[in-house]
Amino acid sequence: MSNPSLLILPGDGIGPEVMTEVRKIIDWFGARRGLKFDVSEDLVGGAAYDKHGVPLADETMAKAQEVDAVLLGAVGGPKYDDLDFSVKPERGLLRLRKEMDLYSNLRPAQCFDALADFSSLKKDVVAGLDIMIVRELTSGVYFGEPRGIFEEGNERVGINTQRYTESEIERVARSAFELAMRRNKKLCSMEKANVMESGILWREVVTRVGKDYPEVELSHMYADNGAMQLVRAPKQFDVILTDNLFGDILSDCAAMLTGSLGMLPSASLGAPMANGRPKALYEPVHGSAPDIAGQGKANPIACILSFAMALRYSFDQGAEADRLEAAIEKVLADGVRTADLLAEEGVQPVSTSEMGDAIVAAL
Amino acid sequence: MSNPSLLILPGDGIGPEVMTEVRKIIDWFGARRGLKFDVSEDLVGGAAYDKHGVPLADETMAKAQEVDAVLLGAVGGPKYDDLDFSVKPERGLLRLRKEMDLYSNLRPAQCFDALADFSSLKKDVVAGLDIMIVRELTSGVYFGEPRGIFEEGNERVGINTQRYTESEIERVARSAFELAMRRNKKLCSMEKANVMESGILWREVVTRVGKDYPEVELSHMYADNGAMQLVRAPKQFDVILTDNLFGDILSDCAAMLTGSLGMLPSASLGAPMANGRPKALYEPVHGSAPDIAGQGKANPIACILSFAMALRYSFDQGAEADRLEAAIEKVLADGVRTADLLAEEGVQPVSTSEMGDAIVAAL
Ligand SMILES: CC(C)[C@H](C(=O)O)[C@@H](O)C(=O)O
Ligand SMILES: CC(C)[C@H](C(=O)O)[C@@H](O)C(=O)O
Repeated sequence: MSNPSLLILPGDGIGPEVMTEVRKIIDWFGARRGLKFDVSEDLVGGAAYDKHGVPLADETMAKAQEVDAVLLGAVGGPKYDDLDFSVKPERGLLRLRKEMDLYSNLRPAQCFDALADFSSLKKDVVAGLDIMIVRELTSGVYFGEPRGIFEEGNERVGINTQRYTESEIERVARSAFELAMRRNKKLCSMEKANVMESGILWREVVTRVGKDYPEVELSHMYADNGAMQLVRAPKQFDVILTDNLFGDILSDCAAMLTGSLGMLPSASLGAPMANGRPKALYEPVHGSAPDIAGQGKANPIACILSFAMALRYSFDQGAEADRLEAAIEKVLADGVRTADLLAEEGVQPVSTSEMGDAIVAAL
Repeated sequence: MSNPSLLILPGDGIGPEVMTEVRKIIDWFGARRGLKFDVSEDLVGGAAYDKHGVPLADETMAKAQEVDAVLLGAVGGPKYDDLDFSVKPERGLLRLRKEMDLYSNLRPAQCFDALADFSSLKKDVVAGLDIMIVRELTSGVYFGEPRGIFEEGNERVGINTQRYTESEIERVARSAFELAMRRNKKLCSMEKANVMESGILWREVVTRVGKDYPEVELSHMYADNGAMQLVRAPKQFDVILTDNLFGDILSDCAAMLTGSLGMLPSASLGAPMANGRPKALYEPVHGSAPDIAGQGKANPIACILSFAMALRYSFDQGAEADRLEAAIEKVLADGVRTADLLAEEGVQPVSTSEMGDAIVAAL
């Protein structure tokens, strides 16, 4: 049997730096745990634009469709701010999500014990926080037609379309309920059903899918109240299910609550492939951080934890994922910190590659 | 000259209770400061539905168009959850906003010194916080067509349309820049121009309007990053400008940061009327809180501060607004607290009407 395949797309900004550290981890698992991957690497985002004039080449897209999992760093940067909308770095990422049909985006917001002090929230509000946001990722206002800037009378109008079919809502709802079953059996779905008809349909379909999961306690919340409740008392939540646009905002809000932004991974999953594995792309929640790119200051943990999610969700290696996560917790407990994690004075930060080495050592 | 006119719409839940306290304040200004208003009262939301079968009667709408200012309590409640979308309590409020063309919604997020401890955020992150969110209120996905739930093949699809014309963006941007000029001359505009064409147009128009306000330091931020930055370091902002849907979520998030949700007022302003006053509706940021309605537990301060905003923005009585705000600060400094403001143990809460009386006494 051939090795499982992994396509690495480091992307822009700090993407390449953090990905270098992930490769150390991948190598360790190959050498020490017999977990070998066929790793290939390619361009996405601004890096792809610089070479190909598009943020994702067709050959890269084709490769992404074939591999068992894609691991992405980050895309975007000020250098590309003035590019036309259609070739902006973000379009590369959005094309991957859409064409791979990665409809279920899992974004854990977890507060690491060693870092609870680092949140802007009071320690007791966030210590031990562990919620999972399931964001729909292939539809809604991100992809709905019509869209564009049009002439109308003597002015222009900007239009986007929020659009959800029943089956689009159903499949992501099902993935969220499945997750809730493996966690604390509590699911909160967020929309604006008081204002938007797409929210009404969302609520109706989620409620219907919920009938198949009678053990899961289902609740519904308007998304504005959801933002409030996340800030007020985030620990009331276990799994949160929401659409593409609300998910973008609410998951970033939740991520920032933890104080651990440089630590948060994500998984974007689609339907099972012929080999039973879901189509999958893994990436850190943080962005390309152009302000610190190339300085060895970036925290590689979010990207390494994204690889841990790949071990768990794509390769059925839950025990190895646990091992990797435990190594990271040990390194943090030992006080090893990249610059973004420095709450206390007097502690010297380690570089991106020193953090990677420390994690390998802890493994 | 006749007295300025005020239409009071208490609405549902705690709306009537808090409005009773506002009337005490209005009476005080009439008796003691010679500021007399012609006050009328009518129904909105569920209360209007119960009587008229619609959440806002046409006669009430007509009255709202004629008065100098509308003061609204809150709408909605579980009793109305199963009503058809078209007659839900919220539709009454949305009709007022749309037909009065109240395009500029001002939502201050202010942390009151006496309450800084009450936030879920660390004190140093929020103490002294004073930002103003300007939310577009009459367009965007709240009102765009087409909208609804449609049959498509053998399933249904929920559709809403995000839609902004240049002139809609321009007028709300102008109101935000005017506000910024009277504050700290810093404006941050939030959208998702990396994903939505309506956001590209938004950014372009705001930038163009900014040329008329060279003294104002203008920045742009993606709305997801905006949510993060609000949680991380809210004091970096002065005025935030955003659209209807992002404004709904971001302003609730900002409100919750302050720990003072029961304290936050809002003003929704339109174009000037023949008498020079803007069309205006004032309401607290909090909702109808059905769980505590009718128990005398509600905090009337947000609604009273909404009246203070009316004094300032509709009636050119800035000094009287200051007087009212100072009275509220004094009462808080004296330790008077409704139940929602109880951070410390052992303090006895006052009732809604005791809080109103205390503020009158402090005046
Ligand atoms: C980069 C951008 C297109 C993307 C999004 O808006 O989805 C990002 O914010 C995210 O959340 O992954
Ligand atoms: C009640 C509801 C329609 C309203 C909105 O979504 O605008 C509310 O959340 C608000 O922010 O005023």
